[in-house]
Amino acid sequence: MVQSYPDLDDGFAALSDRTRRGILERLGGRDASISDLAANFEMTLTGIKKHVAVLEETGLVTTEKVGRVRHCRLGPRRLDAETAWIARYEQTLEARLDRLGDFLERTKGTSS
Amino acid sequence: MVQSYPDLDDGFAALSDRTRRGILERLGGRDASISDLAANFEMTLTGIKKHVAVLEETGLVTTEKVGRVRHCRLGPRRLDAETAWIARYEQTLEARLDRLGDFLERTKGTSS
Repeated sequence: MVQSYPDLDDGFAALSDRTRRGILERLGGRDASISDLAANFEMTLTGIKKHVAVLEETGLVTTEKVGRVRHCRLGPRRLDAETAWIARYEQTLEARLDRLGDFLERTKGTSS
Repeated sequence: MVQSYPDLDDGFAALSDRTRRGILERLGGRDASISDLAANFEMTLTGIKKHVAVLEETGLVTTEKVGRVRHCRLGPRRLDAETAWIARYEQTLEARLDRLGDFLERTKGTSS
């Protein structure tokens, strides 16, 4: 029943912080350095580095140090597994609501 | 830039544990008691109660005590906000890849 997706645990945990979601949105526009991100989010370099490290561990962000500047960009991982899980869950819900609808329809037919 | 969705933080955090995702999938099939879930996931009642409490706080699961049995069912909240966030993020990525594709196409045209 419970499928083992360690990546999915990490992926959803990475998304559970508004600053980390903001960093992903920001990098979706264009690449940025740690300093750029710190300025964008009015956060200390240390604070931003911690969030970027979490995103890097999940593979959602890649960083590269060029001279004294650490550049951040999206990837290599995308949110395919997370999207698939939520879509499957929503389908299960829809199927259940459909069955409930059918049941109510049949009950109505019987009682009228 | 960073949008404040406290619910989204909680929603993604709730999904970041495989047992909690399993409970949601299980309840998508049909309602269950805490004991049913403990048996399904081979976990102590205390362990399951903690996970159900997290899901209940986010609104993804509702529980009701009837006599000595606590029944669990899905809702009232669904994963609409989470789905919307991921979809918007994926669109940003696609748009960026499209712009990159256009750029490469133009560059190719110039160099040939």
